[in-house]
Amino acid sequence: MHKVIVGDYATSTFRKEEPESLFDIAFKAGSILLSHRKVSPTEIDAVLFSSCSSDQYSASIIAEMLGIKPKIAQRIDNLCNSGTAAVISAYGLIASGLCKSALIIGAESRNSPGRSLSWDVARGSFTLPIYWATMYARNHMRTFGTTEEQMAMVTVKNRRSASKNPNALYRKQVTVDEVMASKRISYPLKLLDCSSLCTGASAVLLLSEVMLSRRVENPVYVTGIGSQTNSASLSKVISDMNVTGASRIAAMEAYHMAKKTPKDIDVAELHDAFSIMEIMAYEDLGFVAKGMGGRFIQHGKVATNTRGGILGCGHPLGATGVSQVAEIAAQLSGKAGRRQVKGCKNGLIHNLSAGGTSATIIILGVD
Amino acid sequence: MHKVIVGDYATSTFRKEEPESLFDIAFKAGSILLSHRKVSPTEIDAVLFSSCSSDQYSASIIAEMLGIKPKIAQRIDNLCNSGTAAVISAYGLIASGLCKSALIIGAESRNSPGRSLSWDVARGSFTLPIYWATMYARNHMRTFGTTEEQMAMVTVKNRRSASKNPNALYRKQVTVDEVMASKRISYPLKLLDCSSLCTGASAVLLLSEVMLSRRVENPVYVTGIGSQTNSASLSKVISDMNVTGASRIAAMEAYHMAKKTPKDIDVAELHDAFSIMEIMAYEDLGFVAKGMGGRFIQHGKVATNTRGGILGCGHPLGATGVSQVAEIAAQLSGKAGRRQVKGCKNGLIHNLSAGGTSATIIILGVD
Repeated sequence: MHKVIVGDYATSTFRKEEPESLFDIAFKAGSILLSHRKVSPTEIDAVLFSSCSSDQYSASIIAEMLGIKPKIAQRIDNLCNSGTAAVISAYGLIASGLCKSALIIGAESRNSPGRSLSWDVARGSFTLPIYWATMYARNHMRTFGTTEEQMAMVTVKNRRSASKNPNALYRKQVTVDEVMASKRISYPLKLLDCSSLCTGASAVLLLSEVMLSRRVENPVYVTGIGSQTNSASLSKVISDMNVTGASRIAAMEAYHMAKKTPKDIDVAELHDAFSIMEIMAYEDLGFVAKGMGGRFIQHGKVATNTRGGILGCGHPLGATGVSQVAEIAAQLSGKAGRRQVKGCKNGLIHNLSAGGTSATIIILGVD
Repeated sequence: MHKVIVGDYATSTFRKEEPESLFDIAFKAGSILLSHRKVSPTEIDAVLFSSCSSDQYSASIIAEMLGIKPKIAQRIDNLCNSGTAAVISAYGLIASGLCKSALIIGAESRNSPGRSLSWDVARGSFTLPIYWATMYARNHMRTFGTTEEQMAMVTVKNRRSASKNPNALYRKQVTVDEVMASKRISYPLKLLDCSSLCTGASAVLLLSEVMLSRRVENPVYVTGIGSQTNSASLSKVISDMNVTGASRIAAMEAYHMAKKTPKDIDVAELHDAFSIMEIMAYEDLGFVAKGMGGRFIQHGKVATNTRGGILGCGHPLGATGVSQVAEIAAQLSGKAGRRQVKGCKNGLIHNLSAGGTSATIIILGVD
């Protein structure tokens, strides 16, 4: 098996504006990455495009725009999980020896067709994601005594990190009081407990270890991968509202592959489309015991969502997972600038789709 | 590296009717395959869905419908190449050790959004695929003396094969005279030189060799993979109208990986969306010298498009590549019924997108 490293990464500035074309925004992230000259376009064996858009032949179009003639070009989608799903596919192509390099580009526009879960008829009229987040939040408060203030602290922490990230949608910090006083959307969630759909793109270059010479000084390895799809319908997963079960299963698989435990993780990107989801992620990933997530936000030892998370950066669906991988790679390379977590060696990416019906975990590490 | 085998396959009957939902037709192919009991749903590690449709979270929806809780679920698209692209991704997931099994389902409805190449603005108003096929056909006639009758013979051969395939859209044989007399669409192509979009689904199960025990008697191995994307726009490939360059590059790569030459291939599924494309495929795959494709149809030694090809079976975009793999697996297993090619050991699948701007080749073999 060929070892796989994250050879480079680039992220565009996430915005509220609609781009003229999704391809413009995807091109931007790809061209920034290529401008670093870690690889030449002729060396790229695969272009995987992650997006929920309905454009046809999109991976080939982006490859042509970037001057790449890859062996493999394909689009991959799986709602919010799309970006990490594409990274996992790229890992397979490289580890198996089919490719030596893969450029994964995730891009989405604010009015993406992935913004409504209209296919899940069991949701009735509750097709917007906030409805499942509301159920999770109410249950967590009822069962474990989690408070609205603790959820607000997730937003405060992630907006603080986002203030140091020039690509984040929200650069302005907020206080617990401001979150608590923000517009009530669906009890107990308020406007500032919720992420915003936005336009953005991110790119990650995976390389086979055989391409390492001279290119990358302190290589960041993909050490663990876990993924689990429990269902498409929320009604199938809410028999136990205390866990997003897919995350737990995926995490166990990834820790096993990486030969790591939750205690080894120094820095993590967690899926925080809603503040409650980050609290549940602490528990599902084993950073803290079940029910203790609300307190972990105050006393936890893992640096979480250093780029600002989805709450701070915004949520361009197909780009989110890719930008999570980019952030952990930046942290482990010591190139996260003002956001740098000192001495971090192992990082984890957690992503999920549609109320936790599916989840992916990727673990990266440096020697 | 883990060896990968085609463990099972199933194809629905291709039809002109629209299904109530694309998921119904995808489910049909998947449930036929599961009914063979080569694997149980709990053993399936990945569900890859190939389709040009714009449904969201489609791979997870199909997994749930089939009672599968896979690790990995994702949709993959790349126009006509989608099905073979998904098979290649699945190969990567298994060969790399991430998964032990993957179910690839391709499905498309007749009114798929992939039917028009509207993104390729350099085509002007010539967005329908027949326009590039017309250019290829005129060039081949002018340069190599290929005749309309030779193209007609491709249709006659493939419709003859389709008459033996209970899942084919067109079961009625046609004569050269009937092809020649059919409605003129765009000189020199006539109605019967062209395939038809249709509704259909096909499923293929890939397994890691470690899952072989008891399940499969004479395993069909994936021995070669080649893929090449030259561009998205036709204008970028027509500097040499004599070849579909991506096919040639992909074929060389696949032959190299499989350690085979064109002479080793006993049976092949070729992309014949238009009759001229099969003639060009003979040449691009090295079955015959450049320019001799028109004569190969009369004197060739490789059994081609035994399921009836796209001309006979119809063209449900995302399903086509999967059904091509299913046919070659059936042939190499000796289970192709009335279409069986005696004693075949090595088979090849050739698929392409958008005028040959990209192509994929998969080689299968039995010991």
